Amino acid sequence: MVSRPTLPSVDPTPSQLLLVDSVDRPGLVHQITGVLWRHGANILTNHEFVDREARRFFMRTEFAGVAALGAVVTELEALLPPGAVVRIGRAGSHRIVILATREHHCVGELLLRHAYHELGASIQAIVSNHSTLASLGERFDVPFHHVPHEQVSRADHEAAVLKALEPYEPDYLVLAKYMRILSRSFVDRYRQRVINIHHSFLPAFVGSRPYHQAFERGVKIIGATAHFVTEELDEGPIIAQGVVPVSHSYGPNEMAQAGRDVEKIVLAKALKLVFEERIFLSGKRVIVFD
Amino acid sequence: MVSRPTLPSVDPTPSQLLLVDSVDRPGLVHQITGVLWRHGANILTNHEFVDREARRFFMRTEFAGVAALGAVVTELEALLPPGAVVRIGRAGSHRIVILATREHHCVGELLLRHAYHELGASIQAIVSNHSTLASLGERFDVPFHHVPHEQVSRADHEAAVLKALEPYEPDYLVLAKYMRILSRSFVDRYRQRVINIHHSFLPAFVGSRPYHQAFERGVKIIGATAHFVTEELDEGPIIAQGVVPVSHSYGPNEMAQAGRDVEKIVLAKALKLVFEERIFLSGKRVIVFD
Amino acid sequence: MVSRPTLPSVDPTPSQLLLVDSVDRPGLVHQITGVLWRHGANILTNHEFVDREARRFFMRTEFAGVAALGAVVTELEALLPPGAVVRIGRAGSHRIVILATREHHCVGELLLRHAYHELGASIQAIVSNHSTLASLGERFDVPFHHVPHEQVSRADHEAAVLKALEPYEPDYLVLAKYMRILSRSFVDRYRQRVINIHHSFLPAFVGSRPYHQAFERGVKIIGATAHFVTEELDEGPIIAQGVVPVSHSYGPNEMAQAGRDVEKIVLAKALKLVFEERIFLSGKRVIVFD
Amino acid sequence: MVSRPTLPSVDPTPSQLLLVDSVDRPGLVHQITGVLWRHGANILTNHEFVDREARRFFMRTEFAGVAALGAVVTELEALLPPGAVVRIGRAGSHRIVILATREHHCVGELLLRHAYHELGASIQAIVSNHSTLASLGERFDVPFHHVPHEQVSRADHEAAVLKALEPYEPDYLVLAKYMRILSRSFVDRYRQRVINIHHSFLPAFVGSRPYHQAFERGVKIIGATAHFVTEELDEGPIIAQGVVPVSHSYGPNEMAQAGRDVEKIVLAKALKLVFEERIFLSGKRVIVFD
Repeated sequence: MVSRPTLPSVDPTPSQLLLVDSVDRPGLVHQITGVLWRHGANILTNHEFVDREARRFFMRTEFAGVAALGAVVTELEALLPPGAVVRIGRAGSHRIVILATREHHCVGELLLRHAYHELGASIQAIVSNHSTLASLGERFDVPFHHVPHEQVSRADHEAAVLKALEPYEPDYLVLAKYMRILSRSFVDRYRQRVINIHHSFLPAFVGSRPYHQAFERGVKIIGATAHFVTEELDEGPIIAQGVVPVSHSYGPNEMAQAGRDVEKIVLAKALKLVFEERIFLSGKRVIVFD
Repeated sequence: MVSRPTLPSVDPTPSQLLLVDSVDRPGLVHQITGVLWRHGANILTNHEFVDREARRFFMRTEFAGVAALGAVVTELEALLPPGAVVRIGRAGSHRIVILATREHHCVGELLLRHAYHELGASIQAIVSNHSTLASLGERFDVPFHHVPHEQVSRADHEAAVLKALEPYEPDYLVLAKYMRILSRSFVDRYRQRVINIHHSFLPAFVGSRPYHQAFERGVKIIGATAHFVTEELDEGPIIAQGVVPVSHSYGPNEMAQAGRDVEKIVLAKALKLVFEERIFLSGKRVIVFD
Repeated sequence: MVSRPTLPSVDPTPSQLLLVDSVDRPGLVHQITGVLWRHGANILTNHEFVDREARRFFMRTEFAGVAALGAVVTELEALLPPGAVVRIGRAGSHRIVILATREHHCVGELLLRHAYHELGASIQAIVSNHSTLASLGERFDVPFHHVPHEQVSRADHEAAVLKALEPYEPDYLVLAKYMRILSRSFVDRYRQRVINIHHSFLPAFVGSRPYHQAFERGVKIIGATAHFVTEELDEGPIIAQGVVPVSHSYGPNEMAQAGRDVEKIVLAKALKLVFEERIFLSGKRVIVFD
Repeated sequence: MVSRPTLPSVDPTPSQLLLVDSVDRPGLVHQITGVLWRHGANILTNHEFVDREARRFFMRTEFAGVAALGAVVTELEALLPPGAVVRIGRAGSHRIVILATREHHCVGELLLRHAYHELGASIQAIVSNHSTLASLGERFDVPFHHVPHEQVSRADHEAAVLKALEPYEPDYLVLAKYMRILSRSFVDRYRQRVINIHHSFLPAFVGSRPYHQAFERGVKIIGATAHFVTEELDEGPIIAQGVVPVSHSYGPNEMAQAGRDVEKIVLAKALKLVFEERIFLSGKRVIVFD
């Protein structure tokens, strides 16, 4: 109770982000920063990484002082190797939709951060195959769509979900404990834009009731992995991971609670990285510039 | 998204807690468990610790199968050294009131856990010297009392806060970023029942704007301490602590955000220990049976 | 450089440990502490846990003031359910032999702690299927036995290892990166007395070159698991686990280095628990009283 | 025991490091990478950071393919603002001397890593004001100099230490629990090249016997801070920090042991960053490019 409130210092210079993902070749940093320089940019932070196995080049540049952002992108696209992706970052302005089932912990965490402008993205809606979380959405004035999966085919259910998503034009879908497997065509529709949170164990457990298995095996650590969803079942490129210690005195329910606690933290951490445009995908790996 | 929901296994035997805090003397465990045994108890977990410096004995026993709990307590009180405190634990049934100022992160975390019966206590109300968090309380249907501190004396403000608290008969007060120093008489009124969360740094910083100081000093870790509030200014016995890594790229605001994230986790962890009756106070130290 | 050396405070009362592993039945704590009480014991710390699934009772009691330890054990054996294991703990006096192959990091850590009496056990010898670590053993004056596995059958190699171990009468074998699979009969010979350290990943990787797989998959955390070795291939009951963060900038070699760093810490932590007699085995799970 | 040895993959392209520390001005990245580009460099990783408060620019570039490193430096020195420091990194080839007193844990950790070429620097000697660690130096064939501080003035003792250091021409002095305060003139002699490891607590404790104070206060976390030594007493710019959990059952000695364990890990981590040339000093802060 004895500390005083932190008054945020407002940084006077607004800054912008340039993001480049390209086949590697010598001279890229020089060429890219040359374009920025000619447009009057002052570079504040620059991250660059070459994935030597994949021969790909990734760069994230925070800069100030440029008026003609469109021209920067156009010049860079002309200059860079064919297929290079050049973007002006949109940190803080992404639109997301949450897909959930019945568990509240991740959804609640995201709604709270959203309500206080700490999420770095705007939650447009929650779509769920159950109605359980409708009241949670209501508490935070976020539209909730119940799209039941019972007595419809998988394809029809996915079509209904896609239809519910469409008007929100989401930049990202966040699977906040969405307990349905997505089809390849669904994932392709939001390619590299679907993020999932998944419990993780050492060792890993196959099959159902993982926390019961973890309990029976007496694990001392429970983890969570946030990852992009790809067409390959289960786990795509990893964005963030975390763990919490557990002990022999935890039953399966206590282990599941510990798992929920770490899942929401890891998901929030991964989303922060994504929404701050600190993430590049390089094959099966995620480059994190933090 | 590929895991299936965990269906909690219901443990068939309801269990109870015996809590003993006494001057130490030989034979205590034997005598206490003798009383339990004669009342038909099966002990499930037993934690016992002797603070050899303070010569005090602490015991937490989870047991099943006893009908006459009152008789157990009466017999133990007769048997144990004078001044011994014998209690039947009330895990999960505590009543709390939250004191807050303007920051939402800890209050929001507690409200979410409360809404889903994960807090282990029931939030009766929020009392604040500002009105900022009124809408957050409303979202979760928790009464909010604005008790302004402007243009009243410290004594009058505290009297008004105490009056607001009274009808709720709280077992614990949780200072969830309450930015007012409590007087000795206020603390005495809720002796050993006021819990605070406080940012912590290595090294520690004196004075205002601690995150600016932490930034200027380039700390690589930011921490939080949950503690009981005592008459001594600032920090009482520590219940739980935690840290998060930060880097040179964090400005004061990012450091403050990292601090908020760790504060809410550490406060929730400390409260879980308190509400599960896993905590004993021994002088300036907290014994944690987990 | 500004701190002053810590002068250890000598605790005047020597204490002892009683360890009980038994089928559960009501009244055990009372009966066991009754025997201690009649022998004049003052209990300093008591940990008790009932594995309700396995219906087993585990107790670790630190006490002072008893002369006739043998009589305590005899009385308890008569009193407790058939098959109960009653032991006086030997914290700090175990004899161990290290089995290793070529990696130095775990062996070096254990030798350093051994040299400064921090291991809680006495390293009798190092046995290895390679000669690589001979010089490391020499540096710390610990006998080194090279038992090559080339051009001998698995059975003959194990027989030679067992023969090398025999004169040292080890209480525990510590597999400090021993890269050979032990046969069932070997493990049975040192039943519940063989401890291994193993890298761990989330998700787990099957097959060879795990750090290359971890690199390709872009994991953000690398872990280690210390466990008892059982007849079932790979992993037995888990004693301790730990993780370290890694990033996209780590190649396979850097990941392996991070893995080595966490392996040695987790192994040392697990051994400390074992040598302080804080460990009970309950089926596939390890009860840790710390 | 079931994993197979990791065979390090040799990366075929040798790479080099360019390090620039300069007053900030627009265009620096472009100009610097232009020089590299004209000399045929392929940039593999580039870290750049502008300390906006201090208006300083820091850059660490890993590149391949340049023959004329000297010419690169010369051209850059001509090009950059006056006072800019341009260096070719010497990752892995630093010479260090360890200063120690009586505690072995940090010295032992560094000697082990040194013996297996994992330290990233070469330990030239150990200098100590006590003879306690002489045998440890001997075990690893590292020269040990006992420079007693008894019955000599502080100035004379420091002069003797400096004289012992001189023939080794160390790039860095590592204070591995050196329990003497260094004078301003000594620190100036090895300006920004003296690294210390220090225990850290939340809250911080002033005065002697910190672990006793930590015990009495019941802290739940013990930490360590590795930092550059500056003329200001106690703590200079922080390189790395870490913590370990402790509990009420730890006495002062167990807390001190936990402190030693985290100190050696944090010191090793900080030195790795320094020896890999990932560190820049910006006023009181350390920029870490990892």
